[in-house]
This record gives sequence, C-alpha cells and structure tokens, in this order.
Amino acid sequence: MKAEKIPEATIIRLSVYSRNLQYMEEMGITKVSSQEIADATDGSSAQVRKDLAYFGEFGTRGVGYEVKHLNRHLKKILGLTKPRSVVIVGAGRLGKALMLYNGFGNRGFRVMGIFDKDMSKVGEQVGDLTISPMYKLDQFIKTHNIQMGVVTVPAAAAQETVDIMTRAGVKAILNFAPKNLIVADDVKLRNVDLAVNLEVLSFYMGLEEREGEK
Amino acid sequence: MKAEKIPEATIIRLSVYSRNLQYMEEMGITKVSSQEIADATDGSSAQVRKDLAYFGEFGTRGVGYEVKHLNRHLKKILGLTKPRSVVIVGAGRLGKALMLYNGFGNRGFRVMGIFDKDMSKVGEQVGDLTISPMYKLDQFIKTHNIQMGVVTVPAAAAQETVDIMTRAGVKAILNFAPKNLIVADDVKLRNVDLAVNLEVLSFYMGLEEREGEK
Repeated sequence: MKAEKIPEATIIRLSVYSRNLQYMEEMGITKVSSQEIADATDGSSAQVRKDLAYFGEFGTRGVGYEVKHLNRHLKKILGLTKPRSVVIVGAGRLGKALMLYNGFGNRGFRVMGIFDKDMSKVGEQVGDLTISPMYKLDQFIKTHNIQMGVVTVPAAAAQETVDIMTRAGVKAILNFAPKNLIVADDVKLRNVDLAVNLEVLSFYMGLEEREGEK
Repeated sequence: MKAEKIPEATIIRLSVYSRNLQYMEEMGITKVSSQEIADATDGSSAQVRKDLAYFGEFGTRGVGYEVKHLNRHLKKILGLTKPRSVVIVGAGRLGKALMLYNGFGNRGFRVMGIFDKDMSKVGEQVGDLTISPMYKLDQFIKTHNIQMGVVTVPAAAAQETVDIMTRAGVKAILNFAPKNLIVADDVKLRNVDLAVNLEVLSFYMGLEEREGEK
C-alpha cells in the first residue's frame, strides 16, 4: 500500500463505506455488491471498486463482497482495529456534545478526558467524565498515552492548546476552532468548520434566488 | 458569474476567507494583501487571487484589498447579506449543541426552531427556544418561511425528516445523520460526518505506525 498515492477523498469514502457495512452486519446481511455499497453512499459502483482496489482484491466477480470480511479489512486500513484514546479541550457546548457523541465511541475512539481553563467549569460532570483543569492536560496526555486531541476552545486559545497537546505527545488533532494552526510535520491536523457547511448551502441557494429574479 | 464553473473547494475557501476578514475588521485592520489572506488559511496567495478572480476584480496591485469592501463582497457572494432562517430537527446532544453554537448566529443563520419526536423532550428549554413536537414541524416551516434544515436525528429517522422538511418548503439541508438521503433536484444537501474526520486522522496515524514497525 503506497500511502502517498491514495487520495484523501478515497479515505473519506472508505470511512463511509465501513459505517454502512457495519449497519449491514448488524442487520444480518452477509453479501453485498459494489452497486449496493455505492447506493448507500453518494458514489457509483465503479468508484467503489476503484477505492477498494488501492488496497487489494476483496470481492469476487458476479458474487460481490462478504460484508464482515470487507468491513474488517476497511477497519484495519482505517486504523480502527485498536482503540484510539482522545482528549477534548474546551468544555463549551460543542466540546460537551462531542464528548457525549455516540459516533466516536462506536468506531473505537475513546474520549478519556475533557479539559477547560475556566475554573468554574472544572469538576462538572459530562457523561462519565468530569471536566479537568488545563494545567493537568500535559501530564494526563503523557500518563494515558493519548494519541488524538479535539480542540473546541475559542480561536484565540487554539494555538496554545495545540502546542501543549503536541509537546505532550498527541499525534493527531481535530480542530473546530476557526483558526489556522501550526503543527510539526509529524502531527496530523484536520480543521472542521461547521458554519462553512451552511455557507456553502447558502451560496447555492443564492444562485437560484438570483436566477429566479431574472 | 457562472455558477457551474466554480469549484466547491473555492466556495469553502471563500467562506474561510470571509471569516478571517471579519476578524481583521473587528481588530481594526483596513488593508490586507492576498499573502496575508493566504497566511490566515491553508492556501497560497496565488490561490487566493484565483478564487477571488471568479467573481471579479477586488484588489489593487501592490496595494492589496480593502478589508471591509472585500468582506462585504464575499458575504454577498455567499448569500449572507440577508438572514437565513433555520430549523434543527433532533434535539439530542448534537442538535442542542448546534442550537447553541455561536458560529451560526454570527454569520446570519438564525435558528428559529428545534424539534424532536420524543415527547419527553418537548417543552424543554434550549437557549432562547423550547423544543417543539415533530407534528408541528410542517406548519412551522410554512408559517416562518424556513429555508434551511439541520438534521441531527438517528439514521433510521433521517429520510422521513427530510421528506417533511422539503415538502414544507425547505430548500437546503445540512445532514449529520450517517445516512445517504434522497432529495429533489432543487434541494441542496450537504452531509457532515464528524467521525469521518477522526477516521481520516486514524488512517494517517496507522500509516506512520506501520512505517515504524518496519
């Protein structure tokens, strides 16, 4: 597997395929065609076959794929066969929602701690955890060998937060703060901006409205 | 402006540029170069100029852009000059977090209602709103002329939710349910999957771990 050659769009789709295969497994479906995998996502069957071909031969022509077998492979490719430990920094509404979000736990991401520098929040219960103070973050990451960090602090505090995380050993960061962050080359960073999604929709709606005015 | 020709990646970047220009405006910065806009995001100055060129001439060579002027234009392009009314369906943790998320209101998206079919949640206060029952959704959308819907219900209820929304007149949907939804051609749909982001990070971490084992 040559990592450099695999488009990120393929990785994103593999993640979605895997989620759908999981459903199928739970529903007791054992065989699936590339067309059925495509139907459950936004793609075509050719796209599904192309995405899977990066990683070897999984299906049988005319028969399709074994759901369980294929999903186990996809989860291995996605690094989901062992649990990943996660901390969330920023115990605002979004931080708390992510803390309680089932979608992470289902896929092997274990939120081990939630931190905030606002001492009035420290000690508050969120799900199974209590909010910890920021000065304990560094030691916590080292002690629990935390690999991933989720950043939901305000933009002004985001770089400082990421610096603490990465110095302590975090290797991947999911950033919700509306700020471009600088990390070392060996740290993976993804930025998520929830408002962007509404703005893209708004753009397309605006186009149609302008069309309508003509 | 030929809508068909503009890549979605450009729209996403315009949204990020606009957010950064907003900050600059608030900090009292009046002039900005394409390099400075690029520095605040992940792009290059050439990329910034190319993105803006789809929509006309905004800057002056050697002088740069007027922050306020450029941001006003970007917001117009993004359809953000008039408020957009939004409903959220699904008053779970994510729905509530989005309801309370400042990032939407700041950009002109007004969450007007939050709905859930779980009657034990109905009547509960979330920010300024109270959770309404699902059977009121259709009438609410029509009465308040709601344009956008955010779906945070479980996967099994997502298609039904979207059908109600679009029949009532919603024109754009942001879907957080892990399900591929079918909408009419004149309805815009974006799917957001929060776990995908962690899985993409996990994939790249897995690659490095396998490298390390060699």
